[in-house]
Amino acid sequence: MYALQQKILSEGIVLSEQVLKVDAFLNHQIDPELMRQIGVEFAERFKDAGITKIITIEASGIAPAVMTGLVLGVPVIFARKYQSLTLKDDLYRSKVFSFTKQTESTIAISNKYLHSEDKVLIIDDFLANGHAALALVDLISQANATVCGIGIVIEKSFQTGRKLLDEKGFKVESLARVKSLTDGQVSFVES
Amino acid sequence: MYALQQKILSEGIVLSEQVLKVDAFLNHQIDPELMRQIGVEFAERFKDAGITKIITIEASGIAPAVMTGLVLGVPVIFARKYQSLTLKDDLYRSKVFSFTKQTESTIAISNKYLHSEDKVLIIDDFLANGHAALALVDLISQANATVCGIGIVIEKSFQTGRKLLDEKGFKVESLARVKSLTDGQVSFVES
Repeated sequence: MYALQQKILSEGIVLSEQVLKVDAFLNHQIDPELMRQIGVEFAERFKDAGITKIITIEASGIAPAVMTGLVLGVPVIFARKYQSLTLKDDLYRSKVFSFTKQTESTIAISNKYLHSEDKVLIIDDFLANGHAALALVDLISQANATVCGIGIVIEKSFQTGRKLLDEKGFKVESLARVKSLTDGQVSFVES
Repeated sequence: MYALQQKILSEGIVLSEQVLKVDAFLNHQIDPELMRQIGVEFAERFKDAGITKIITIEASGIAPAVMTGLVLGVPVIFARKYQSLTLKDDLYRSKVFSFTKQTESTIAISNKYLHSEDKVLIIDDFLANGHAALALVDLISQANATVCGIGIVIEKSFQTGRKLLDEKGFKVESLARVKSLTDGQVSFVES
C-alpha cells in the first residue's frame, strides 16, 4: 500500500535493526485519514471471505480494525490485556509474549461476542514473530469460530511470524512488508 | 444523541446503581457504524472551535476519537497507560484513578506530538468523577496547549465529574447523559 509505505519512510523511526517506531501515525498519534484508507484496503482484500466479525488487540489495533469494520459492515472486538471490573463474563484467554515490551501478558475476550458460526478477520498493527496473531487465533479456536484471514498493517518480514502463519495455512495480507531495517533505513519487500 | 441512547437502552447492562456496562458496542465489542455517527456528532458540536488535535486515553476512547478526527481532519493522540519500549521520548505524565478498576495508574503522552499552539479536543468514552478528563487536561497544560472542549460519549450525570468540569469553565458535550441507574433501569437527563 503506497500511502502507508510513504508514511513509514517519512515519519517512521528506525530504533534498531529489529524495531521500527511508528508512534507518529499508528502507535501513539493516529492519522485518521490514513486509517480510513487502511480500512478500505483491508476490506477490499477480504471482501469475498464472508467475514462476520473482526478481532484485534488493544490498543494500536483498534483504529485500523474499526475502519475496516466500518467498510465491511461488521462488529469489531478488541481483546483486552487485563481483566477489568466490567469484564466479568466467561472469558476466552490466551497468553502472548510481547517482543516490544519483553513481557508475557494474558489477553481475553468475552464468550458473549464470538460464536461458532463466526467467520473472523484478525487485524493487528504489527506482525513480528506472530505471537500476538497466534494468541488471537487461539481465542477464536476456543469459540469454535473460523479464522478467515489475518490483516497486518506493518509486517517485519525478516522476523519469523509471516512464515509461521503461512505454514499454518492462513491467508495473510500485510499492507507494508518491511524487508530490513539495516543501517537505519527501511526497505520494503518488492511486491 | 438518539441512536446512542437507543443502543444503551437495548444493549447496555446495569451492573449496579453506579456501573453501566456497554461492552456490547463500546468497551469491548465496538459498533463501527455507531462510532462513525458519534464522530460526526462530535465534529458538528466542536466544528467552530478551531481544533487542531484530539486527545483520548487508550483503549475505549480510541474508536470515537479517531472517527471524530476523521471528520475534523486532525490527528488523534491516545495517552498510554504504561511506558512501552518504543515510547521513550520525553513524556508528559499524569496520574488518574480509575473508578471502574479501583486502581491508580500513570498516563503519558510524548511531548513530540503536542505543542503550545495546539487547540485540543478531549474525547473519552465515559465521564464519571472526571478524574480521567482532568488527567488529560493536566497533560495538555504541561504542553502549554489549550483545551477547547471535552466530548464524552456517555456521561453519568449523577456523579461529580460534569459539575466539576463545568465549574472549571470547560465546554463539555456529552452524547448521552445518564440521570440514574436505579432499579436496573437507565434513565436519561431530559435534553
